[in-house]
Amino acid sequence: MEQRISIVTLGVNDLEQSAAFFERLGWRRSGNEPGIAFFQCGLGALALYPRDKLAEDVGISPQVSNFGGFTLAYNARSKDDVDAVLSQAKAAGAVVVKPARDVFWGGYSGYFQDIDGHFWEVAWNPFIALDEAGALKLPEG
Amino acid sequence: MEQRISIVTLGVNDLEQSAAFFERLGWRRSGNEPGIAFFQCGLGALALYPRDKLAEDVGISPQVSNFGGFTLAYNARSKDDVDAVLSQAKAAGAVVVKPARDVFWGGYSGYFQDIDGHFWEVAWNPFIALDEAGALKLPEG
Repeated sequence: MEQRISIVTLGVNDLEQSAAFFERLGWRRSGNEPGIAFFQCGLGALALYPRDKLAEDVGISPQVSNFGGFTLAYNARSKDDVDAVLSQAKAAGAVVVKPARDVFWGGYSGYFQDIDGHFWEVAWNPFIALDEAGALKLPEG
Repeated sequence: MEQRISIVTLGVNDLEQSAAFFERLGWRRSGNEPGIAFFQCGLGALALYPRDKLAEDVGISPQVSNFGGFTLAYNARSKDDVDAVLSQAKAAGAVVVKPARDVFWGGYSGYFQDIDGHFWEVAWNPFIALDEAGALKLPEG
């Protein structure tokens, strides 16, 4: 696993209201995917996603006490890389809470929970390229 | 406020055990400050910090239901810049939960809570330089 975080996803109550908050801070949204808001941040991104849908994506109830309302994502270079990273995390002491699978948005993704209970998505996303150093560049929008 | 996240801080139960987890994933710790672990991630950093101390730093109880066990940090360029960003966040709809003040580690820091309850530290840290683009470079260690 390379030493990087691709995306910090914050669970939000009202996507457009929350995106507007960051726009009032001077931030500029990338792309125009419905249902999620992305902001380029350095070599990674901040994403806003409805909190209940984020919990559903992890495969837990949004009410469980160990859900902090956020996830970190590590974008891998291939499906095989996703599987390898999840295996490595498991060997290091993490719990694979959602084995990798093809997902509705066209990628391949799974989740592990680190030893303190924080959720990490490991994903292959064919729509967001990574450069050699692992930097993620969102489409303009 | 520039469009970037400087540090993702995860609250942990046992700092050394949690740092060792990331080392087992192949990550390499920077610096050797006691009581906190830093990992360079692209232009920012992942920090691990005891969960109860993280809540204390925000100024809340670690048991409050709206504490997700993590914070995001925006490193500003000066004390004035910290004040300006907190004011801008307040004007945008955030709640300043801890006005900026000189803090024990030698910097100047405050916190706001975004409209979904996530905590953002805004800090001036004289020990970690930012380049012109706002990239943070941890000392080797």
